[in-house]
Amino acid sequence: MTITAAQVQAGLAAALKKAGELKSPSSIAIVDAGRNLLGFLRMEDALLASIEISQAKAYTARSLNMKTADIMPLVQPGGPLFGMEHSHRTQPLVVFGGGVPITKDGAVIGAVGVAGGTTDDDAAIAEVAAAAIAG
Amino acid sequence: MTITAAQVQAGLAAALKKAGELKSPSSIAIVDAGRNLLGFLRMEDALLASIEISQAKAYTARSLNMKTADIMPLVQPGGPLFGMEHSHRTQPLVVFGGGVPITKDGAVIGAVGVAGGTTDDDAAIAEVAAAAIAG
Amino acid sequence: MTITAAQVQAGLAAALKKAGELKSPSSIAIVDAGRNLLGFLRMEDALLASIEISQAKAYTARSLNMKTADIMPLVQPGGPLFGMEHSHRTQPLVVFGGGVPITKDGAVIGAVGVAGGTTDDDAAIAEVAAAAIAG
Amino acid sequence: MTITAAQVQAGLAAALKKAGELKSPSSIAIVDAGRNLLGFLRMEDALLASIEISQAKAYTARSLNMKTADIMPLVQPGGPLFGMEHSHRTQPLVVFGGGVPITKDGAVIGAVGVAGGTTDDDAAIAEVAAAAIAG
Repeated sequence: MTITAAQVQAGLAAALKKAGELKSPSSIAIVDAGRNLLGFLRMEDALLASIEISQAKAYTARSLNMKTADIMPLVQPGGPLFGMEHSHRTQPLVVFGGGVPITKDGAVIGAVGVAGGTTDDDAAIAEVAAAAIAG
Repeated sequence: MTITAAQVQAGLAAALKKAGELKSPSSIAIVDAGRNLLGFLRMEDALLASIEISQAKAYTARSLNMKTADIMPLVQPGGPLFGMEHSHRTQPLVVFGGGVPITKDGAVIGAVGVAGGTTDDDAAIAEVAAAAIAG
Repeated sequence: MTITAAQVQAGLAAALKKAGELKSPSSIAIVDAGRNLLGFLRMEDALLASIEISQAKAYTARSLNMKTADIMPLVQPGGPLFGMEHSHRTQPLVVFGGGVPITKDGAVIGAVGVAGGTTDDDAAIAEVAAAAIAG
Repeated sequence: MTITAAQVQAGLAAALKKAGELKSPSSIAIVDAGRNLLGFLRMEDALLASIEISQAKAYTARSLNMKTADIMPLVQPGGPLFGMEHSHRTQPLVVFGGGVPITKDGAVIGAVGVAGGTTDDDAAIAEVAAAAIAG
């Protein structure tokens, strides 16, 4: 199941609206089921680091089919997957909130990553984008 | 002079429309004056290589404040800038058509890169996006 | 359309048999539609460089939906896409023979890359693997 | 002592069978004594992150001639090798279960890494593959 350009635009627009409501200048990244970039938008006041972090969050959420916030406890010192975030050669994983899978009919068809604000705000914006894309 | 998210969305939408008219499935990338990614959109039939190439074109066009097609003759064997495309440590430059600076009031405020079709089509789509953003 | 583990095993086995007939010690890499690795096999006498080159060929063939041998003339000095092989940040493209798309019902569902021998032998082995997978 | 392609295929097949019994969709990676990839197989439902993590586990197990699960306590904060997992320039090490050396006649001839399930399941599958290869 592919995600169309119109769906990507709708997801970015929904995220932009939510980010405005939360006053959280953000970058939003959307990847497909193969972890390849489909869409990206950076608001003019967003931190530059949000470019890389939003994309890493989307990549991570699809790599593990998990919300990135849910990975955090697993990789802590003493946790069962300690250090997993560094296991990828060219793209580090991100383990704090803001990355969410896009699920449709029980299948993960892609992921959204948002960065720039608090992890709670990032995650809330990502959820809105994922819902707009899943329809 | 910054480029707003609304302008980025307008630039992506204009490029999408032009790509549809040309039947050229494309990726479109927009960077700001600092060569940092502002927006990206990949159409569902675009080649996956267009993800990287469109971004490389936008990066190149702003790095040199030139259309990427105009760089080609300079870097040929025997040309005055032979090999320049490999001079950047982490982001190779692209020297064929499809990357164009966004110019406003005589200043370069960013760049657009398009990939997926012929270099002529890519360049035509990038020009449309740049014009939509410059207003 | 996904490629099953059994299909990957069949593709690797078919490539291995062909490589034996050609006396061409090889590495064989198979990627899915998202350019992500599905299968890999290196014969015990294959050059170590074939590990990276076979994977780069499979990645390239799917990135461009082309046989890698067909890219060669386009990227030559004076060619329309001069230097394109360096446009990807983390995975260089390969433009000589040995990478072939896997096509089924008109859609590219993945790619095979083979390295270790002459480019003609590599390509012949890759074709056999792709045919075994497409069924 | 080299590992033949037939042994690699047998190791992958044994791992695949065990993964099926455990209902644990997995990626399996096999490296030789030089830590270089010999074989790889990803089951169609395996997480994409298992591609990188399985290879990192096999690399780690042979780099240290240890099961990866046994490394975990050593690299914890306060442990004697704290931070060791980041000591390799291009390939991060993995310190949780799923990577096992392949030992024959007292010598380590390679390693297997498995990812996709619980670390216990990953390790159980890797043990089966290593045993199939050691014969």
